[in-house]
Amino acid sequence: MSRILAHYDVAAPAAEIEARAAALALEQSIEMPLDAVTSDLVRREVVASVERIEGLGPNRHRVVLGLAPATMVRADGTAEIGQLVNMAFGNCSLQDDVTLVDIDLPAELLTAWPGPRFGLDGLREQVGAAGERRALTMTALKPQGLPPTELATLAATFARAGLDIVKDDHGIADQGAAPFAARVAACQRAISEANAATGGHTVYAPSLSGGPRQLAEQARIVREEGVGMVLACPMLMGLPTFDELVRHELSCPVVAHPAFGGAGRMAAPLLLGRLFRLLGADATIFPNHGGRFSYSPAACARLAEVAREPWGHLLPCAPVPAGGMTVDRVPEMLDFYGPDVILLIGGGLLSAGAELEARARQFAARVASLEVPVP
Amino acid sequence: MSRILAHYDVAAPAAEIEARAAALALEQSIEMPLDAVTSDLVRREVVASVERIEGLGPNRHRVVLGLAPATMVRADGTAEIGQLVNMAFGNCSLQDDVTLVDIDLPAELLTAWPGPRFGLDGLREQVGAAGERRALTMTALKPQGLPPTELATLAATFARAGLDIVKDDHGIADQGAAPFAARVAACQRAISEANAATGGHTVYAPSLSGGPRQLAEQARIVREEGVGMVLACPMLMGLPTFDELVRHELSCPVVAHPAFGGAGRMAAPLLLGRLFRLLGADATIFPNHGGRFSYSPAACARLAEVAREPWGHLLPCAPVPAGGMTVDRVPEMLDFYGPDVILLIGGGLLSAGAELEARARQFAARVASLEVPVP
Repeated sequence: MSRILAHYDVAAPAAEIEARAAALALEQSIEMPLDAVTSDLVRREVVASVERIEGLGPNRHRVVLGLAPATMVRADGTAEIGQLVNMAFGNCSLQDDVTLVDIDLPAELLTAWPGPRFGLDGLREQVGAAGERRALTMTALKPQGLPPTELATLAATFARAGLDIVKDDHGIADQGAAPFAARVAACQRAISEANAATGGHTVYAPSLSGGPRQLAEQARIVREEGVGMVLACPMLMGLPTFDELVRHELSCPVVAHPAFGGAGRMAAPLLLGRLFRLLGADATIFPNHGGRFSYSPAACARLAEVAREPWGHLLPCAPVPAGGMTVDRVPEMLDFYGPDVILLIGGGLLSAGAELEARARQFAARVASLEVPVP
Repeated sequence: MSRILAHYDVAAPAAEIEARAAALALEQSIEMPLDAVTSDLVRREVVASVERIEGLGPNRHRVVLGLAPATMVRADGTAEIGQLVNMAFGNCSLQDDVTLVDIDLPAELLTAWPGPRFGLDGLREQVGAAGERRALTMTALKPQGLPPTELATLAATFARAGLDIVKDDHGIADQGAAPFAARVAACQRAISEANAATGGHTVYAPSLSGGPRQLAEQARIVREEGVGMVLACPMLMGLPTFDELVRHELSCPVVAHPAFGGAGRMAAPLLLGRLFRLLGADATIFPNHGGRFSYSPAACARLAEVAREPWGHLLPCAPVPAGGMTVDRVPEMLDFYGPDVILLIGGGLLSAGAELEARARQFAARVASLEVPVP
């Protein structure tokens, strides 16, 4: 198997970069002085290699390490996401001169992970838009603190307005005001009833949270209530736990939320685009430029690109730009992302107050009506 | 229940800090415009409050938010670590002007977590140092890539030399070269035999990794092989998964490793000191100043302080400064940290080559012989 390429931005001047890259290679493999290694096999097949060093600026270099498959492949040929991240960014996440920018997986290793099980086509089919190459719409139930009945009323309003996906706010967990079981039952019922009345196909995506036992219990409720989609925060639950959740507990599409995903030291396109997709996110929410967060247009474009581009056997993952978006921005966002996207507007709908349903309808209609050139 | 206080460093000038703090309070609670909230209860008991703003510099302020217990307490009064982190740092982890510095938990909420089950006294008892107020010694089996027999030989050498704790390198997972089951059995046997020969009490701490299913299987092997301690990387496995692992799968002490713990945006004393302790780490490894990482002496001192200081019902968690340490630095480190510490030297022993056992003995003897004043 060829090596796993880990791409880093390293803040170091030209005079020091070779030594810094060599130290990084040891840090991310054997974590000990090379001259204390007595095994030839370890030197040859375990120590990370420095594959490339490129200047990016006076004090900034791109360093590409070749991580050895031996550091992460099990005896049966399988691999595990936690150990991949450990080898790529375990210790050096603690070194503030290093940013992990990207990871290239050899084809034989890529098959260790499922990727999205539905992808954007599967999502379109689920919301009654099979064959239409249009953007999908998503909104959020909020604020947390409301009881299940009020959240369900809100869900019904959005369903009547024809939005495609209604997710829980990611802050809604299993709090006393709206415990998971009661909330999910109430919201799913409200949406199913609205769908029956309108002939619509709105899908509810409740937010899963907690440790493995709580997640398994919530997944059981999702199955029993006939819920069609879920929201999950991979970084809060841990990537290996998210991986197992998707593989073993969920038969519906998964929307990934970036909470606790950090900002600076692991590039957003890698974490929220590539890695969440690798583990099976069918859609990935991220902070759009020009909202409440500081992602640049270039970072957003790159994130959408790695989420959707051809990648081995993996279906595409739908990018979901969000974070302070409004209905006014729909044309501009569709122009930027093209039609293979899900637009998420939460507070921007709720701020309509009594006009909520009308504004939600406007959102749905606007997305449905716009001719979006395929980039 | 009184509010949970979350302390942030925010990069904003005085003219903007009030608006920035108010926006942060919404971001970390209801995530929508305040004027779109119709429920009085939500305004009063769910929205985060700005409790304090303090200047730290021309463009830097300390902002203390009061997070509402309603945002994280379940109907049965319990709480969950993932949701605590979500409310304190979920979305704003993505805003690069914000660093989470500390969290104060009200006494009623603190009891939701177990904290260390053994603490430093429990660890001392386990290694035959009950009643002695001395620092403990720890080393690591490396490099990864060696087969179980060679790792076991190394383990036996360290045990004969009288080191207290021998852990797996955190890069050693379940790779083909040394699968978990075979490695743990071999290393535990080697250490038990060495202990029997010398009358020593060296404890082996294998590294646990992977998702919930793999972790449960590894915990079973740990119990069956009579292993006395484990190493775990809470950030790689996810904090909620680490929480459940400690509560439900492990009856032995736990050493936390900081891999994937990041560097800049969540203060190390909070994450590696306070939160890992909260979830039950009996010892917490962190990068010591003057090694391969860039933590300052002040950050290290603060980390050791929060890991050990009185905190509700929680036993102290032993600080484990590490990352490029050498036997030469033992007196200085004991001077800095006092005797309530575990010193971890890995590569600094292995670089002795043929003199490995002698250098390990020197490490053990030096720690045992030094009179360390209690600070």
